[in-house]
Amino acid sequence: MILIIEGAKGLMEAIKDRAFEHKYTVMIGRSHGIHAEPITFGFKLAVWYGEMKRNLRRLEAAREVISYGKLSGAVGTFANVPPSIEAYVCRKLGLKPAEISTQILQRDRHAEYFTALAILAGTMEKIAIEIRHLQRTEVLEAEEAFEKGQKGSSAMPHKKNPVGSENIAGLARLVRSNAIAAMENMALWHERDISHSSVERVIGPDSTILVDFMLHRLTGIIKGLVVYHGRMTENLNKLKGLIFSQQLLLRLSQLGMTRQAAYDIVQRNAFKVWETGKDFKSHLLEDQELMGYLSEKDLDEIFGIDYHLKYVDEIFNRVFA
Amino acid sequence: MILIIEGAKGLMEAIKDRAFEHKYTVMIGRSHGIHAEPITFGFKLAVWYGEMKRNLRRLEAAREVISYGKLSGAVGTFANVPPSIEAYVCRKLGLKPAEISTQILQRDRHAEYFTALAILAGTMEKIAIEIRHLQRTEVLEAEEAFEKGQKGSSAMPHKKNPVGSENIAGLARLVRSNAIAAMENMALWHERDISHSSVERVIGPDSTILVDFMLHRLTGIIKGLVVYHGRMTENLNKLKGLIFSQQLLLRLSQLGMTRQAAYDIVQRNAFKVWETGKDFKSHLLEDQELMGYLSEKDLDEIFGIDYHLKYVDEIFNRVFA
Amino acid sequence: MILIIEGAKGLMEAIKDRAFEHKYTVMIGRSHGIHAEPITFGFKLAVWYGEMKRNLRRLEAAREVISYGKLSGAVGTFANVPPSIEAYVCRKLGLKPAEISTQILQRDRHAEYFTALAILAGTMEKIAIEIRHLQRTEVLEAEEAFEKGQKGSSAMPHKKNPVGSENIAGLARLVRSNAIAAMENMALWHERDISHSSVERVIGPDSTILVDFMLHRLTGIIKGLVVYHGRMTENLNKLKGLIFSQQLLLRLSQLGMTRQAAYDIVQRNAFKVWETGKDFKSHLLEDQELMGYLSEKDLDEIFGIDYHLKYVDEIFNRVFA
Amino acid sequence: MILIIEGAKGLMEAIKDRAFEHKYTVMIGRSHGIHAEPITFGFKLAVWYGEMKRNLRRLEAAREVISYGKLSGAVGTFANVPPSIEAYVCRKLGLKPAEISTQILQRDRHAEYFTALAILAGTMEKIAIEIRHLQRTEVLEAEEAFEKGQKGSSAMPHKKNPVGSENIAGLARLVRSNAIAAMENMALWHERDISHSSVERVIGPDSTILVDFMLHRLTGIIKGLVVYHGRMTENLNKLKGLIFSQQLLLRLSQLGMTRQAAYDIVQRNAFKVWETGKDFKSHLLEDQELMGYLSEKDLDEIFGIDYHLKYVDEIFNRVFA
Repeated sequence: MILIIEGAKGLMEAIKDRAFEHKYTVMIGRSHGIHAEPITFGFKLAVWYGEMKRNLRRLEAAREVISYGKLSGAVGTFANVPPSIEAYVCRKLGLKPAEISTQILQRDRHAEYFTALAILAGTMEKIAIEIRHLQRTEVLEAEEAFEKGQKGSSAMPHKKNPVGSENIAGLARLVRSNAIAAMENMALWHERDISHSSVERVIGPDSTILVDFMLHRLTGIIKGLVVYHGRMTENLNKLKGLIFSQQLLLRLSQLGMTRQAAYDIVQRNAFKVWETGKDFKSHLLEDQELMGYLSEKDLDEIFGIDYHLKYVDEIFNRVFA
Repeated sequence: MILIIEGAKGLMEAIKDRAFEHKYTVMIGRSHGIHAEPITFGFKLAVWYGEMKRNLRRLEAAREVISYGKLSGAVGTFANVPPSIEAYVCRKLGLKPAEISTQILQRDRHAEYFTALAILAGTMEKIAIEIRHLQRTEVLEAEEAFEKGQKGSSAMPHKKNPVGSENIAGLARLVRSNAIAAMENMALWHERDISHSSVERVIGPDSTILVDFMLHRLTGIIKGLVVYHGRMTENLNKLKGLIFSQQLLLRLSQLGMTRQAAYDIVQRNAFKVWETGKDFKSHLLEDQELMGYLSEKDLDEIFGIDYHLKYVDEIFNRVFA
Repeated sequence: MILIIEGAKGLMEAIKDRAFEHKYTVMIGRSHGIHAEPITFGFKLAVWYGEMKRNLRRLEAAREVISYGKLSGAVGTFANVPPSIEAYVCRKLGLKPAEISTQILQRDRHAEYFTALAILAGTMEKIAIEIRHLQRTEVLEAEEAFEKGQKGSSAMPHKKNPVGSENIAGLARLVRSNAIAAMENMALWHERDISHSSVERVIGPDSTILVDFMLHRLTGIIKGLVVYHGRMTENLNKLKGLIFSQQLLLRLSQLGMTRQAAYDIVQRNAFKVWETGKDFKSHLLEDQELMGYLSEKDLDEIFGIDYHLKYVDEIFNRVFA
Repeated sequence: MILIIEGAKGLMEAIKDRAFEHKYTVMIGRSHGIHAEPITFGFKLAVWYGEMKRNLRRLEAAREVISYGKLSGAVGTFANVPPSIEAYVCRKLGLKPAEISTQILQRDRHAEYFTALAILAGTMEKIAIEIRHLQRTEVLEAEEAFEKGQKGSSAMPHKKNPVGSENIAGLARLVRSNAIAAMENMALWHERDISHSSVERVIGPDSTILVDFMLHRLTGIIKGLVVYHGRMTENLNKLKGLIFSQQLLLRLSQLGMTRQAAYDIVQRNAFKVWETGKDFKSHLLEDQELMGYLSEKDLDEIFGIDYHLKYVDEIFNRVFA
């Protein structure tokens, strides 16, 4: 458990370093897989860091709840061995004596441990899937490091596959389903039955070792991740300025236009982009109705990237303070 | 969430009241479904109370982690709405602003909430299964209250079924499996995809309402639970004194006998009980080898119930302090 | 897979043998854990046999669906290797060529295999839990065989624990939760991603070996199960005849009494049993209203065991034909 | 269940129609999210059709196993009602009488039903995720139909989101986790306990209705799916011919070159593509060592698309025969 917590902290350090490195590396933000508005790559990493802080809190809580021992006899009454012995033995083992126990510690403790691991694995799955997305051929904004001399696909020499991230995405499924078994272990009969034992012999080492492995593998991936600024910029411009449509919409509303009227103007020019392949701004400049409301300078401002970055610093302060 | 926490506290009150009422109501403790050593019914309830304290802590942590809001725009950059507005709106809603967000709050928060509910449901399942065991015809040490005028089984008028506890045991399966769906919701694409939404529309109300219902139903069952002292005593004596074999074994060891020799003596007399149906103590009194080590007064002490109750008070102090 | 199917058949043989051995071994049937009406122990085993027949059908279907191979290249188009080679290689391996494939076989096949194992494990869990119930001290109608020289509990020499059945009940949780991971493996990206691989390396051997182990362990338990006729009879009479209340109710209805009136008579005498501890029939004989409808001979018939056994032979013919 | 099967057949029809429509619509096949070798869009659909055939078989099997009724009394012995009545009632209800039953039908039947639904949902999840991938901005090879007058994102007028597919991907999580609850329902106590009832009241309607809804929604999406040939071609050429590297590698091997030597030649020219941005073939034409082995005509053949399509017809015959 201490190793898991150390591993989680190591991952956080790696994320933090890369977050500051790419604090102002601009890229497109996406929702539904579709381009939305600009973010920075550092911002994306900061989101992961924020989530890891919560994982760390859950791991600490889980560590506390499983740091207990018991030596209270066959049903928990200390009939044959007094509490003082339990206290002594627990102290020797670096554990605290459980307030009360039956033949065993109650399994809600273990369930908390295994669900904390499963949620942590879910976070790593999210990061891994993100990297797989960023590495896909058409996006290629980031890539797992390719070690010198490493071959790509055996059959297709041109391929660099995000196999580390795929591996992590798969392993998360195991850690998550093991949590179900851990929760089913809770409802033991009377002062204990032994049905939980065979389960814990499997999921105990499996989930612990898997999460430890995942943490270290993902830390390595984050540290080595190759970031392609050029492709980020290229992709950012892929929609020919359409990603700035929301600002335009808002500006028109501020100028007193009804939302519906503004939406119509924006949408009709957006559709022209799809039809002509020319960029959004040039269509807007030709829209006489629109240009009755806005100057060219207004448009430049609306299409400016700084508009989107102005709170990055404040957000970083919130997350990394 | 506040209602869930109130409900959990209500259940704890009910458990506590019955625990003190039955602090010294002696019954057999069981492991593997087999009689082990005496406990009290209050002790059993105190174990549940101890587990509920941990559930309460998990619920409070889950409440904290979901008490956050966000109003940071389509990808989380505050491009169109400054953080001050987010702070204002969150305050109005009784929420705290998230440190960082994308189009949404990250779903590890929700996963923590749903797993906390699932573990709580697992505790209630454990209690419900215990009551079902205690109510079974051959045990019948406790029984769900039968309301006046209530019919038993429609076809079998003599039956009083633990339908409340069975209901709770079943519902726990739903709350537990919903937690899996909640954890799968974590790995959304980029700055959000909407696949989590349909899931949360189902499991959000379902798990919350089910746990609320379970808490109140179980509280009612605990409050009304009919406890049969007579049957507890009767069952306690079912193994004709064999449950005291461990003390005998320990006493013989203390007298310098090897563990193997002691075990042989105990086991040979235990097997006689199964063969003859006479009680253990009478067989021991006839065992000349044994009685060379022990006096009849020693035996009386070994077969005494106080031996098992001597730490009940200390345990209660630990749990209910 | 062949070994699993052989194991399942072996378990079925063991169940069948014991079913015929105990075709007319009368015991109480229970619903909600409460005594209901008489059955035979062979009937209980026949229910398990019937369920195993369905498991066998599911296993055969799963074997079919995973008996396929593919050698269709990196994306499934046979660009570099013609279908004839695939056919040849599959034949050599005892597989059939998949109709269509991508880089891999689609994972619904594997999901079917792992869910078939999980449902089979669920059947074994049900049987194991039944044995644990039957072996509990207060019931003790059956018991896992205790090998010569085997010690019971290390601390409590009198105990014989159903550890084999507890073990099986626990392992079922693992096989079941592995099925979730197998189903999550289905949604791979495009013509394949490799996230399923790490999962299958764990659950493939784990679920297969666990089910194989469970089948053999449970077969051994069924074969060796010690059945206590005496206790079955004793338990059957535990409710002092109340289990015959349904026949009484039906007979009164047939005699033209309204259901409500009949229910009242039955219930009032049933409650007297609980109060006095005397048997149901003697109370009925003293109920003048009731005895206006029935003769003593009628009562004897109503309290007869043959009434419940008359279709056992027909049921066995259905199941084992 | 009949409606589910009809819905599955409707989905298959839609897939089949589009598969033949796009039998020779060439696009890139991908593994690990990375471009691999060419396929056709019809081929991709044919893979789904093949998987749906297996789902249909599982649904038919599940329909059979739940088409049973029972009227065998409180514990299954027909004590009060003979098998002939059961046969009569089941016939009236369009059911078959179960060979054997307790107070209820055994829940392995229901587990098979719910896992069959869950695997079907997994197939739909796979298809939905594929569509989400194809619709992402950088890929945009296909798109859910946008109904006339439909707004895109409320805040971002340029966006067309694959919300139908995202919805289906989410709902699959619910259907899958419900299968776990269904499997936990199997291990009921003795001749029945009622813990399964509350579970089935939720997952019965939920999983059935959700799958029915998903089938119809996905059928509509498949029917209306807008396919962008132009982008498919554009993406196909994205790697500037590198996707033909495997054929080159194989041809060199056939000419007697060692695999290692061939791999080196291919990889060194592949890396040049990344460096220069020029296409693969032009680098190869300049590679004197290579051109000692191959003519320009050979290269044209190696870079031909027909090489990849030659078995499409045979595959379609296998799948749709």
